Amino acid sequence: MRPLVVQKYGGTSVGSIDRIQNVARRVQATVDAGNRVIAVVSAMSGETNRLLELAGGICKEPSVRETDVVIASGEQVSAALLSIALSHGGTRARSFLGHQICIHTDAAHGRARIRAIDAARLNAFLDEGGAAIVAGFQGVNEAGDITTLGRGGSDTTAVAIAAATSADACEIYTDVDGVYTTDPRVVPEARKLDRISYDEMLELASLGAKVLQIRSVEFAKRYGVPVHVRSSFKEDTGTWVVPEESNMEDVLVSGVAFDRDQAKITLPNVPDRPGLAAHIFSPIAEEGIVVDMIIQNVSDDGTTDMTFTVPRSDVERAMAIVRAVSAEVGAGEPTTEGDIAKVSVVGLGMRSHAGVAAQIFELLGGEGINIHMISTSEIKVSVVIDAKYVELATRVLHKHLVGDAEPDS
Amino acid sequence: MRPLVVQKYGGTSVGSIDRIQNVARRVQATVDAGNRVIAVVSAMSGETNRLLELAGGICKEPSVRETDVVIASGEQVSAALLSIALSHGGTRARSFLGHQICIHTDAAHGRARIRAIDAARLNAFLDEGGAAIVAGFQGVNEAGDITTLGRGGSDTTAVAIAAATSADACEIYTDVDGVYTTDPRVVPEARKLDRISYDEMLELASLGAKVLQIRSVEFAKRYGVPVHVRSSFKEDTGTWVVPEESNMEDVLVSGVAFDRDQAKITLPNVPDRPGLAAHIFSPIAEEGIVVDMIIQNVSDDGTTDMTFTVPRSDVERAMAIVRAVSAEVGAGEPTTEGDIAKVSVVGLGMRSHAGVAAQIFELLGGEGINIHMISTSEIKVSVVIDAKYVELATRVLHKHLVGDAEPDS
Repeated sequence: MRPLVVQKYGGTSVGSIDRIQNVARRVQATVDAGNRVIAVVSAMSGETNRLLELAGGICKEPSVRETDVVIASGEQVSAALLSIALSHGGTRARSFLGHQICIHTDAAHGRARIRAIDAARLNAFLDEGGAAIVAGFQGVNEAGDITTLGRGGSDTTAVAIAAATSADACEIYTDVDGVYTTDPRVVPEARKLDRISYDEMLELASLGAKVLQIRSVEFAKRYGVPVHVRSSFKEDTGTWVVPEESNMEDVLVSGVAFDRDQAKITLPNVPDRPGLAAHIFSPIAEEGIVVDMIIQNVSDDGTTDMTFTVPRSDVERAMAIVRAVSAEVGAGEPTTEGDIAKVSVVGLGMRSHAGVAAQIFELLGGEGINIHMISTSEIKVSVVIDAKYVELATRVLHKHLVGDAEPDS
Repeated sequence: MRPLVVQKYGGTSVGSIDRIQNVARRVQATVDAGNRVIAVVSAMSGETNRLLELAGGICKEPSVRETDVVIASGEQVSAALLSIALSHGGTRARSFLGHQICIHTDAAHGRARIRAIDAARLNAFLDEGGAAIVAGFQGVNEAGDITTLGRGGSDTTAVAIAAATSADACEIYTDVDGVYTTDPRVVPEARKLDRISYDEMLELASLGAKVLQIRSVEFAKRYGVPVHVRSSFKEDTGTWVVPEESNMEDVLVSGVAFDRDQAKITLPNVPDRPGLAAHIFSPIAEEGIVVDMIIQNVSDDGTTDMTFTVPRSDVERAMAIVRAVSAEVGAGEPTTEGDIAKVSVVGLGMRSHAGVAAQIFELLGGEGINIHMISTSEIKVSVVIDAKYVELATRVLHKHLVGDAEPDS
């Protein structure tokens, strides 16, 4: 049977009639090369925001169920337009919406998770020789209501469909040409990675490298879908996100990521009692605020200073909660600091090389950069530093830990 | 059980956030008055055209299946926005798309006809006390593809849903406040009708009174749905379109309609052979051109002059066909005349009053207006005259046949 390729085109790639016709030529070329093709599309760039503004124009917190109905129309339109362009060019094509191929999700409107996809209808159409165009970002819950998967959800749609149809590859077309060792705007020596493991990509995705939605990487890892991140404006090979291979640990560090969008909150003199952490962080989680790093130092007097980071846009809401909890448990006055940034070093090789963290502290110390917070995982070290040092820290860490050696291919 | 009212709001009524909130207040008031409510909405005004331009920007004749997917998104958005506005105001509401309540249609994309509606989901929601908001204009065919019902299709959605749910009434909200005896812009004495029969409304709808889509009236007649045409900006009672009642024939003439959008084509010296009419009109019908009036006069030499009217926008295409047929059958050179208009008089009372046609000819003759063509049905007389006389003819016929008596209530 002909190879099956799932392609995902983001909002910029389908942002105008001309660009949709460009995508159509790419899909057509893939079909002509002997592949079966499923193309997953986002809404035309700007469209989701326009629709959100309509819903937000009615009231401040519009019903999440109905907001999903409104914004899902964006992908519906772009999928049909791409299908029109393909048919016009002589390639048999047909659009499929979330409910038409039963992309079943849970009921969490605005951030639904895919549970199952009935690939039968897609497969039947592919067998007839057509290119299937799928509206990304949307699904349907048990009640038959339209759900959406959250920002970047079309990546997850594409990977989930690739898993459900046992596709040979999932190509993510975007406006960059792959995954880089760090942001090339900050470090000109940054180089494109030819391959990266799911785990490394997960760390990078959660650290602010906005190439792939994090859940799409989780999906790819769980089902072993080979993902190819590449440019929709060039023909070059991009970066393959793939299962871990034995030689991957030979490379110590795959990338350096940074995130300026964090703020630090400190709650001093918290009585050191069991359960108090839950008392603080449960109401924050209930508000949908993602707490990233948490540190606590127990002091001699039986109280502790609790410090943690949240996205900068959520800091006011988080502080309101923390103030209330503080009053309740008799802790000190919470403070916040916005001028911080997080820099992270990621690499499978760190598993077997215990010295990387120490090397990081030494490199930053050598530049006079003070470290506020540290957090480590098996394949990652993150540090919080003053925002003004973020470019310097990234450059230094990239130079000494990644280097400008040849790619690992 | 509480009365069930189906309300339909057109594109102008939901044309902005403010207007959607206005509609929400109206729906809410209807619920508060003790009714169960289903509201059917069109796309926000201008939206369907915007979407058609997107599809038309890709190619001249975009796939009809995919064009339906594109334009159906307009009603999807307005239905969800109205539902958001209602929820915000404290009324339980939920949007329903064509496929979610199984508005089954045939497969004729762009002009599909409704075959069946599964009202169970709507009824269940109404029983729980909610206001159901239905996206008009759209359905789903046997294959699960989105279909649309053609311009004005939301009227038909509303009436069909009223029939399927055995609603007590179907209210059509529009920017005029009812059905008039003629166009008030031409005849200031025109008055709003309190009641009109389905058959009269059908004649008026097909004669250019653009208040209701003609198929919605056919549907209402078939299922006996009482339709109330009224203004979305006023509280006044509008016009009820209802089954024929015994006293309706007491009124001789219900209305005078006119249509400036017609052109006349004459094909002279057609050999008078059986089957030739079909030879001329079949290819015209295949092009989707609606022929309205047809006249033929057999002359002594065994040939006939064939004259008929078509919408002015179709005259060039029709002439091309007629020229080809003429050459084939050896008829004369066809001619066309665009400066014509059709004026029609409609009334149930005409059934039992044979003299109306004669009266019409006399009134027009008295004003020196020459009649080009005449066509009659049981409850209608239409004449084609020079376009320059259309206002004069309408005024004279309205004055003498409708009069300015009190409404028939």
